Amino acid sequence: MKNLKPIVAKRPFTVYFDVTTGITDQMDRMVTRRLSDYQGMFLDDNALEEMLKKEDKVVCNFTELGLEEVEENLLFGTSIVYPGKVGKEYFMTKGHFHAKINLGEVYYCLSGDGMLVMETPDGDTEIVRLKPGVSVFVPGRWAHRSVNIGNAPLVTFYVFRADAGHDYETIKVKGFRKLVIENNGEPAVIDNPKWKGLSK
Amino acid sequence: MKNLKPIVAKRPFTVYFDVTTGITDQMDRMVTRRLSDYQGMFLDDNALEEMLKKEDKVVCNFTELGLEEVEENLLFGTSIVYPGKVGKEYFMTKGHFHAKINLGEVYYCLSGDGMLVMETPDGDTEIVRLKPGVSVFVPGRWAHRSVNIGNAPLVTFYVFRADAGHDYETIKVKGFRKLVIENNGEPAVIDNPKWKGLSK
Repeated sequence: MKNLKPIVAKRPFTVYFDVTTGITDQMDRMVTRRLSDYQGMFLDDNALEEMLKKEDKVVCNFTELGLEEVEENLLFGTSIVYPGKVGKEYFMTKGHFHAKINLGEVYYCLSGDGMLVMETPDGDTEIVRLKPGVSVFVPGRWAHRSVNIGNAPLVTFYVFRADAGHDYETIKVKGFRKLVIENNGEPAVIDNPKWKGLSK
Repeated sequence: MKNLKPIVAKRPFTVYFDVTTGITDQMDRMVTRRLSDYQGMFLDDNALEEMLKKEDKVVCNFTELGLEEVEENLLFGTSIVYPGKVGKEYFMTKGHFHAKINLGEVYYCLSGDGMLVMETPDGDTEIVRLKPGVSVFVPGRWAHRSVNIGNAPLVTFYVFRADAGHDYETIKVKGFRKLVIENNGEPAVIDNPKWKGLSK
């Protein structure tokens, strides 16, 4: 994303996000993640390599509002995960812990069909179904990833404390303990054979 | 509202809120405000008195989730303001500052047509139009009130820090500096002749 000036919110401001598509009127504040950004993060490396030979598809978009990252503020926006698979594994967000690990997040699903995959550093896991109208409270210490198991974009509206920060690295290195793959046309949750945690 | 046990969120949990009506699957965590709860808060006391002789109408509902009020948590839910008027003044929420006045809030309008009326203790005012898809960041120090200027329920999804608390008393005593009334069939913003601030 471009280095946009942080919004110093002394006054109220509005941002438009379509209630179905999640598309905003401030597209310069949307981050785009493509297949090439997910090297080593999908189960099937060969399938990813083959797909990249054809097209570097967009996997997801999300808002990076650029509001000042102080504890009084809240960051918010939409996450859009497009339908698709790498091998048998559904398109997903990278997933992250918060840098301030004790801070939580709220998700509210606007459209699509998906799963929110969550886990703690200690190995506790939880997966909930995302359908329009489902809100999820993700407490502090729970890493979270959205997975699109449907045929349309999976759109969520999210809010978190502006000073929470992101730790993508832990997930990039270790992976999530659970993956969501398609099995006989149905989503199935499996243990991640590539998971690289040292303890369990 | 009943004294429900606070939710101690060590694990993720979900709550359903319909994306159009805002209706939840946990109606025991919705607060109901009726006309009789607004004594002295509408401009036209006589009109309120006359309406109460007929029916104590529901003005709004909102979620009181009961999540533990610690700074790591976020409280969230829907606010539903029903269509109607007391005299010329549209149905509205009471409006509040946060008890921890520096903490902000995020609103996301799901359906209906309204205005979010905001002001600071110093007398700064801001009013934005609420339509489906409009999100509003309300910074700390800005009191806020939703006003329904349409013919259908005004539904918003909101998130704020769980330790923010509410100060309804300041608004109850002083009122907002600006009111939204119907004037020749159109919404109009006027100075509040009953406003009881000591300065300005």
